[in-house]
Amino acid sequence: MITKKQVLEGLETVLVPGVMQSVVKMNLVRDVNITDGKIDIKLASAALAPGAQEWLKDKISSAAGSLAGVNEVNINVVDGNPKDLNDIGQVIAIMSGKGGVGKSLVASLTAVALARSDYDVGILDADITGPSIPRMFGITGHPQGNETGILPVTSKLGIEIMSINLLLPHEDDAVIWRGPLIGRAITQFWEEVLWGKLDYLVVDLPPGTADAPLTVLQSLPVSGIIIVFTPQDLTTMVVKKAVKMARQMDKPIIGVVENMSYFLLPETGKKIELFGKSRGEEMAKAAGAPLLGTLPIDPALAKLCDEGNIERYDSEIYNSFVQNLTGILQNGKKPAKKQQRR
Amino acid sequence: MITKKQVLEGLETVLVPGVMQSVVKMNLVRDVNITDGKIDIKLASAALAPGAQEWLKDKISSAAGSLAGVNEVNINVVDGNPKDLNDIGQVIAIMSGKGGVGKSLVASLTAVALARSDYDVGILDADITGPSIPRMFGITGHPQGNETGILPVTSKLGIEIMSINLLLPHEDDAVIWRGPLIGRAITQFWEEVLWGKLDYLVVDLPPGTADAPLTVLQSLPVSGIIIVFTPQDLTTMVVKKAVKMARQMDKPIIGVVENMSYFLLPETGKKIELFGKSRGEEMAKAAGAPLLGTLPIDPALAKLCDEGNIERYDSEIYNSFVQNLTGILQNGKKPAKKQQRR
Repeated sequence: MITKKQVLEGLETVLVPGVMQSVVKMNLVRDVNITDGKIDIKLASAALAPGAQEWLKDKISSAAGSLAGVNEVNINVVDGNPKDLNDIGQVIAIMSGKGGVGKSLVASLTAVALARSDYDVGILDADITGPSIPRMFGITGHPQGNETGILPVTSKLGIEIMSINLLLPHEDDAVIWRGPLIGRAITQFWEEVLWGKLDYLVVDLPPGTADAPLTVLQSLPVSGIIIVFTPQDLTTMVVKKAVKMARQMDKPIIGVVENMSYFLLPETGKKIELFGKSRGEEMAKAAGAPLLGTLPIDPALAKLCDEGNIERYDSEIYNSFVQNLTGILQNGKKPAKKQQRR
Repeated sequence: MITKKQVLEGLETVLVPGVMQSVVKMNLVRDVNITDGKIDIKLASAALAPGAQEWLKDKISSAAGSLAGVNEVNINVVDGNPKDLNDIGQVIAIMSGKGGVGKSLVASLTAVALARSDYDVGILDADITGPSIPRMFGITGHPQGNETGILPVTSKLGIEIMSINLLLPHEDDAVIWRGPLIGRAITQFWEEVLWGKLDYLVVDLPPGTADAPLTVLQSLPVSGIIIVFTPQDLTTMVVKKAVKMARQMDKPIIGVVENMSYFLLPETGKKIELFGKSRGEEMAKAAGAPLLGTLPIDPALAKLCDEGNIERYDSEIYNSFVQNLTGILQNGKKPAKKQQRR
């Protein structure tokens, strides 16, 4: 007789339109009952536009109906809110206090590293007034949804992304909002976006220690913080404010990353410290957390970011960052990789 | 007979303790009456600690008493609020939308340029959660004051500075405030700091288009905005949001500055565009304002900023920025230089 596991495996091929992830991964399949050759499936309607619901019912019907020994498939659409359906392993916030040090870059590289290691990953762009994530991943689509919530947009590597810029008519439109509205946008990105099942949700925080970081650290179950800085003394002073904020709010710092640490001359390979000597050790000590990486200024990476191709980046230095990061995460509360979990 | 002008000139030598600017420049001398050899002076108490009041009365007495033909000096201390005593020519906001592009650097260089051209200049550091100004000028003193307000701290070149970092026990303490408190701090810096007479007040805005820039553009009489950006495509997209904000709030953009535009190899003088091709023309067009300067990444400047010696910076490129800036300002509503005004 056919098993529930076989049905779910069969439904892995059914992709939710818009987000292009399977209906199982998005956690929309709420129940599967098998009686002889008859399958009853409960499908949550969360964040699905009416057209998408009908389309999905058809696809599920034919996918389940094509399994050996199945002679009837019934699909009941049930109500569902993204908040109740989301199943997120760890929330990792990328923070700095100072702007322009490469928070979005480190957030993106972190997500890419985890996706390449075969984890299910999402990025919540909490920088409401200066969002960079969609551009780095070359994403321009508008999210779909219904009154219960919206679907994230998916990158080439399968990373789910939500950013205010995906919701604006033009990506350079200004979001001139005071703190309460910004806080509300961030909690909506947490509660009303159908992330489905994720091993990691990476949150890209804006600069400062005001509303947006405060809302994220107070309202989201952040399990760890990565602090980003550059070697300038001035920067490390401001970044230490972020470290103090994390401490005061009792959130663990899992590592620090130095960005723009140096520049390698293309001709000679000579290292030039454009912003002064590395402060990796000093900042690791200040944060009480390991130095995960020391990233150079890399014009090739800047170009990939501008072209929306950050997922293609590869370098020896980056790989060492990835190893350190995944090492740290695997020593902590480790979500099972998707192969193991499913 | 002695004239009021002579008395005021005599009082130019009397410096207000803490701020180290003359009692006349700080606008504390509210009235001078001369009857034969008797001088009656009204001295505003605004922002003066009680000890400073007594000290000033003594100094004013002896300075005025030493003038030829004076045989009696009476000083009446009258109430006064900084808001009523401040006399500020133009308020120039330095804005970007994006963090880390060098707003504070451009704000500081702008103030230094104007101070070197013999204008009276102040800097209001509106970046409450990531203030950089005091560090760049090497200022560590705590401002003095009374219940009506506080005095700014003065740089080596005589630039008056107010920043949240001057009020914190440690400069790396985090200011974990939501928007309303941040807005309140900024309006206090405007209303409760005794700036006295200034030709220009340069306001260093934080990144984003949320509470702090909004408060400054709504509450302060901003006469012009300078937009700062770096050549990365990603940055110009976010900076265009700031341009749109300035437009929507009907504030004139007086110029744009490209920072980190390139790096000159020390050995060969070869220009390396670390973050891509210059976007000066594109941004000038987007802002509808002239390109005031194209500043390179200059490790010497980074070092001066870290050491608190930004006032010592000099370079050919910087001088061309200064010329463009003062040219623009002088074509607009030009405050008289201090020699002419006094």
